[in-house]
Amino acid sequence: MDILVIGAAGMIGRKLTARLVDDGALNGRPIGKLTLVDVNAPAKPDKFGGTVESVAADIADSAAVRGIIGARPDVIFHLAAVVSAEAELDFEKGMRINLDGSRALLEAIRAIGDGYRPRLVFTSSIAVFGAPFSDAIADDFHLTPLTSYGTQKAIVELLLADYTRRGFVDGIGIRLPSIVVRPGRPNKAASGFFSSIIREPLAGQEAVLPVEDSVLHWHASPRAAVGFLVHAAGLDAGKLGPRVNLTMPGVCCTVAEQIAALRRIGGDKVAARIRRQPDPLVARIVAGWPRRFDPRRALTLGFRGEASFDDIIRVHIEDELGGKIVN
Amino acid sequence: MDILVIGAAGMIGRKLTARLVDDGALNGRPIGKLTLVDVNAPAKPDKFGGTVESVAADIADSAAVRGIIGARPDVIFHLAAVVSAEAELDFEKGMRINLDGSRALLEAIRAIGDGYRPRLVFTSSIAVFGAPFSDAIADDFHLTPLTSYGTQKAIVELLLADYTRRGFVDGIGIRLPSIVVRPGRPNKAASGFFSSIIREPLAGQEAVLPVEDSVLHWHASPRAAVGFLVHAAGLDAGKLGPRVNLTMPGVCCTVAEQIAALRRIGGDKVAARIRRQPDPLVARIVAGWPRRFDPRRALTLGFRGEASFDDIIRVHIEDELGGKIVN
Repeated sequence: MDILVIGAAGMIGRKLTARLVDDGALNGRPIGKLTLVDVNAPAKPDKFGGTVESVAADIADSAAVRGIIGARPDVIFHLAAVVSAEAELDFEKGMRINLDGSRALLEAIRAIGDGYRPRLVFTSSIAVFGAPFSDAIADDFHLTPLTSYGTQKAIVELLLADYTRRGFVDGIGIRLPSIVVRPGRPNKAASGFFSSIIREPLAGQEAVLPVEDSVLHWHASPRAAVGFLVHAAGLDAGKLGPRVNLTMPGVCCTVAEQIAALRRIGGDKVAARIRRQPDPLVARIVAGWPRRFDPRRALTLGFRGEASFDDIIRVHIEDELGGKIVN
Repeated sequence: MDILVIGAAGMIGRKLTARLVDDGALNGRPIGKLTLVDVNAPAKPDKFGGTVESVAADIADSAAVRGIIGARPDVIFHLAAVVSAEAELDFEKGMRINLDGSRALLEAIRAIGDGYRPRLVFTSSIAVFGAPFSDAIADDFHLTPLTSYGTQKAIVELLLADYTRRGFVDGIGIRLPSIVVRPGRPNKAASGFFSSIIREPLAGQEAVLPVEDSVLHWHASPRAAVGFLVHAAGLDAGKLGPRVNLTMPGVCCTVAEQIAALRRIGGDKVAARIRRQPDPLVARIVAGWPRRFDPRRALTLGFRGEASFDDIIRVHIEDELGGKIVN
């Protein structure tokens, strides 16, 4: 089993790599080779028995992508993306990486043309949906993104479905909830504060909250996201049918409920480290995002997220803080 | 008022041109210049007081498209497309014309960049939807095309909405029903038989029906389609909001009801000229198409189609046959 991870240096990419190395197998088959690709060469994991290749490549460079796909990986995880706020601020970069890059990948796979048909797991986003919404967004809600990022993800979903229908690839798109708690420093995603308001207070630092407490959103932990990716890699295409893009399960809660969970787990002193400082750009982007889903298909197909925001915080404390918080 | 029609040599393009020449005005303003573009230079209309330019250009040729857009037309009708069966048989051609060509147009408009923001009317298709369907497909039904043509149209809808949201263009996408009765010879569209079974019998010729009588579909006349385009050109963007792609009104009926209407208008001898000859490829494509819509938004915004299939046949007899049929 040869596996390719594109976007392997990102947060989810690193955690996915660690999980694959730990498991040593995918879909019940031992992993012989891991190819890790990102715009800067990803770090090679220790303690992996098979071959690891680390490649620096621009996903929008068709020739580079053809070179990587020429090794015919069995499973491809496509995580590479310019995040939402960056794609909104730099339209051309978002189109180049999120749309043209994904298309270069699909075309490189199609170009092999001798029956090569790898499983391609694409990380899409709930940003493919845009307001106004129904109370709980069903799997058959229409695609009306209100950001360029959401537009680019929705377009790749459509391409993925058509390339899969035509037999060029065996694709599955998974719409990740907002991933919290992201470890490390804030990134440029407009959703960054959903993590900051948990991560910084647990580490003894102040966090900035740029939106109202009443903002409702859809969350899963990094550990759950990696679980979705691994489950997607092994899913029977026959069960999936022609609708290959799926909304993943998540925890729906308000910012106020996030803070209440933080208080339950960390105490008042931790929760008091959140400072309110409204940001109109972030508020505007988040206002166009979906809130609550009815991810019936994903649940039926065996995808599992957390049961509560408390669980999401506990995953962060276990996986990132060695079980310790700064009271 | 300068108007650009891309795809002007096609059936709808020619009828739209004739209507614009007849009206001499659009949105209440006189038409000073008409630029007609197609892969082969379109015929120039007689009896037009203003300037007419006829241009042969490949819409996927970015430089050619930039040259055309450099003249800064006020209203652009984008009708150019590879039809459904052709896009299914020749994947690369469909992607190049239907997707890359539309993107070249959007990019040429964006490249002007000094506040130029023309009204762009894009002809999309009900093929952006795919089975399984609800009983009546509402405006918020999701995009799950089951053909490459539908995929390409859906992608351009998403681009059109994002370019409009960002202020690069003033776009509106109209999803045409199947247009019947198409005049002239059959084209490569899988939907061609919906016209053939009316047009050929009325002209004294035999027609082939490749699907079951029970096939249900959504129809409008060429005259109604031109009406939709002209109405879209004048629509207030403020009333449209961020959801710029609209399903047009149509007549929902089965093939059996089409034939019954033909018999009412033309008599038994005309209706007897239909020969049944199943075609699995056409049947498979049509099976994935939507049938019945709830085009509430379009109706609220003033779009009007025919009231019955009898009306659609009468439009054909008036506009194409000079009122005469071959009994």
